[in-house]
Amino acid sequence: MPVFALKIEYTGTGFAGWQRQKARPSVQAALEDAVAQVEPGRPAVLGAGRTDAGVHAHGQVAHVHCARGWNPFRLMQALNHHLKPAAIAIIDAAAVPEAFHARFSAVNRTYLFRLVTRRAPVTLDRGRVWQVPRVLDLAAMRAGAAYLAGTHDFTTFRSARCQAASPVKTVDTVQVNRHPYPQGTEFRFHVRARSFLHNQVRSFVGTLERVGTGGWRPEDVKAALEARDRAACGPVCPPEGLYLHSVHYNPDPFGQGVAG
Amino acid sequence: MPVFALKIEYTGTGFAGWQRQKARPSVQAALEDAVAQVEPGRPAVLGAGRTDAGVHAHGQVAHVHCARGWNPFRLMQALNHHLKPAAIAIIDAAAVPEAFHARFSAVNRTYLFRLVTRRAPVTLDRGRVWQVPRVLDLAAMRAGAAYLAGTHDFTTFRSARCQAASPVKTVDTVQVNRHPYPQGTEFRFHVRARSFLHNQVRSFVGTLERVGTGGWRPEDVKAALEARDRAACGPVCPPEGLYLHSVHYNPDPFGQGVAG
Repeated sequence: MPVFALKIEYTGTGFAGWQRQKARPSVQAALEDAVAQVEPGRPAVLGAGRTDAGVHAHGQVAHVHCARGWNPFRLMQALNHHLKPAAIAIIDAAAVPEAFHARFSAVNRTYLFRLVTRRAPVTLDRGRVWQVPRVLDLAAMRAGAAYLAGTHDFTTFRSARCQAASPVKTVDTVQVNRHPYPQGTEFRFHVRARSFLHNQVRSFVGTLERVGTGGWRPEDVKAALEARDRAACGPVCPPEGLYLHSVHYNPDPFGQGVAG
Repeated sequence: MPVFALKIEYTGTGFAGWQRQKARPSVQAALEDAVAQVEPGRPAVLGAGRTDAGVHAHGQVAHVHCARGWNPFRLMQALNHHLKPAAIAIIDAAAVPEAFHARFSAVNRTYLFRLVTRRAPVTLDRGRVWQVPRVLDLAAMRAGAAYLAGTHDFTTFRSARCQAASPVKTVDTVQVNRHPYPQGTEFRFHVRARSFLHNQVRSFVGTLERVGTGGWRPEDVKAALEARDRAACGPVCPPEGLYLHSVHYNPDPFGQGVAG
């Protein structure tokens, strides 16, 4: 059966998240509705990451088993036609081996979190960034972030609703960079890992924001991590600044690039 | 009477434009409603540029005559409080001499136009860019743009509804730059002039896009300009990629910077 990998961009605003739910709009259900317009039997569209309500994606990846041996570009065009007017788009598509699984074949995932500090409310980026009306110390946030990289028991930074079998994960990188923003400053957090616990990135950013304000010292992040206690976590930050940035596979199914 | 200059950021989506209108929401009316919450007599808020429906601003400037000698930062905070939940924010404020007029004191204005080329629909930037599913030639667009700089009779690039006394304007710069965009390309047009005719920037960009596709040769822009005939213009492009980027004054009233 032909299998296709889809690279997907979406605005999380207005969706209850990636995962199909009863009576609430989800990205997965919108995609499955679009696939059902061009393929028989309503095949499932399975994603690499189950983003929460309000979380966006630049590069979610999903796979779908089709009856037809589509030209990937035609499949992308057909699905985009049927996805309108939802703020979801297939930005690349590729035929993949039958064993390919968007979730289980992934080598790692990168999340981006956009945090903007300024006094005036954001307008053009509303719903796209977390706005904080405080000055944040980049060096302190970087020092705190350094404690989060590596293999640790992340119980502290894990939602009570997390279904992962183990709280031990390996975080490859937690980068914090500063960018200019009109009348303010933007901080971008890039976090890469093979896989994540539920709310892990938002727990990281909420905690690092406390470090940025000086409310926490950088070494308090180490103590929180070692506590292995959800109560030791800083506040979980809101979802609207979070983006599933990219998902990597080896080999890269999109190496050929049908989009363009 | 104390006069204040306001620097304003807004999302044009959902507004009938800058200018107050009967029974349709405008940016100006929203600002005047907010001022009326903190000042007597409903003073007018007069802007530097009358942006059309759907056109955004990073740096619109307006002035208002107040009864109170506000601390500019407090005025900004009070207006932002009363502007909620509209996607309009005062991002800077300054006390200015009584003769200051946001429109007539302006030395020049810069508009930004964002054009994205890719096949898949844009999602996160929907309503913020003009999307074109074609490949565009940067060098050709730059060659065409070069004909538009300088002092000319811009009758060709002027809306039939334009109320300016003369079609002769001096365009300081028309820059076109290419930027990376996920699975596509973004072209940013920066156009600076002392003042503009109605639809001038959108007429420029619509025409240059024709040059980018190869439908027009760069020198056809020169012929269109010299025709001094609205019918010689390329298609006027849609408003959603257009931003009133900045307005300059000498001296700069925001030199001190109360925002931050």
